[in-house]
Amino acid sequence: MKKTIIISHPKLAESTVQSFLLEGLSQLTTGPEVIKVDQLLSAGEFDIKATQKNILDSSEIVFQFPLYWYSAPSSLALFQEQVFTDKFVHTLQEKNKVEPAKLSLVVSLADKQSDFGAGAKIGRTLSELLSPFQAFAEKLGFEYKKPFIIDQFNYQTPKKQQLILVDYLLYIAGSDGSFVDRSSWLLEQLKTMEQTQNIAVLADYLERQIEEYKVLNATLMEIKNDRE
Amino acid sequence: MKKTIIISHPKLAESTVQSFLLEGLSQLTTGPEVIKVDQLLSAGEFDIKATQKNILDSSEIVFQFPLYWYSAPSSLALFQEQVFTDKFVHTLQEKNKVEPAKLSLVVSLADKQSDFGAGAKIGRTLSELLSPFQAFAEKLGFEYKKPFIIDQFNYQTPKKQQLILVDYLLYIAGSDGSFVDRSSWLLEQLKTMEQTQNIAVLADYLERQIEEYKVLNATLMEIKNDRE
Repeated sequence: MKKTIIISHPKLAESTVQSFLLEGLSQLTTGPEVIKVDQLLSAGEFDIKATQKNILDSSEIVFQFPLYWYSAPSSLALFQEQVFTDKFVHTLQEKNKVEPAKLSLVVSLADKQSDFGAGAKIGRTLSELLSPFQAFAEKLGFEYKKPFIIDQFNYQTPKKQQLILVDYLLYIAGSDGSFVDRSSWLLEQLKTMEQTQNIAVLADYLERQIEEYKVLNATLMEIKNDRE
Repeated sequence: MKKTIIISHPKLAESTVQSFLLEGLSQLTTGPEVIKVDQLLSAGEFDIKATQKNILDSSEIVFQFPLYWYSAPSSLALFQEQVFTDKFVHTLQEKNKVEPAKLSLVVSLADKQSDFGAGAKIGRTLSELLSPFQAFAEKLGFEYKKPFIIDQFNYQTPKKQQLILVDYLLYIAGSDGSFVDRSSWLLEQLKTMEQTQNIAVLADYLERQIEEYKVLNATLMEIKNDRE
């Protein structure tokens, strides 16, 4: 089943991070469907019925947005109001009972992630601030996936930005974060992707992962030998 | 200084509870200013500069809305995006440093209030779900007032609905909930209001409050005598 990414961003074209993620997605051989909510709404081309069908046909829905006033931009709320009608909610709940889909969040922050939580600059955790989406997921029978947070993207080095992209693509691909899972996914991408500059970064990333794995494995063996 | 109520509701005219609250407000001699966001936006009559001035001139801002998907309707997010520009945020922060205004929420629920919280039907507390507004208030230097929650208004008896209205008007008036504070406010309203059916309810409410006070006072005296 396909995956659908719903992007809510009033100034999508001006966003460095969103353009970067979109470019990354376009390099995938079997990329997810992308719905740009603001563009569709302002062009009057938002098709509610088609979107509902899209959601029913997806194994994963991703809400992707910048944190605006500690929540999603208004276009995502409008999307929820228009798409999740009483009737559709019922249909979706029944579908999710049989074959539960996932609801994921990809959230970009202007603030640092460490600035959230009791005693920090913004006194609430991201879990709390995003809890309306968790409640939304639970109401509809979605499995709520741990959100993917990107903070202060514009302040990162180009290398760090590329690594964020890899982690993002792994998040969308549904990697469980294990070494084997990540490596096989990356190798698969290396084999199928066009030869771009990203290939070098991916290869580099994979190499470092393999190195890390080797060191860990060696340490584990030492500990084991000491105990015997 | 004046108070400003910002109502976000896509179907305001159809809402029993909102119509009821608005009617109650209209009976006050010195009622707060009311901004109906959806109407202004859809009529293209939303004046950002005038609204900003309004907010600066207010000692209290009230966001009044029904809980839609565990958050506010999209029109409130759009209101926040349009009004709270970087420049205005700075001006407001400076003003609130000198003379902090309050930010209050009046939230109506389709669910029961007891259905919120860990282990309940909706597994998050209302505090958590509304935390984006708390963070918003803190960022802008507002004092965040405990939200006024109205649950399942349509299922209440007419008498209970009138009592909710009284509590709502007291909340807007800024009553601290003490007996003396409530009673004096109510008496003041009784003296100045038109002779409507609400007068009877208010008088009844006041009478019961006074009775309660007397019983409490008598009990306290007994306890005191026992100890001496």
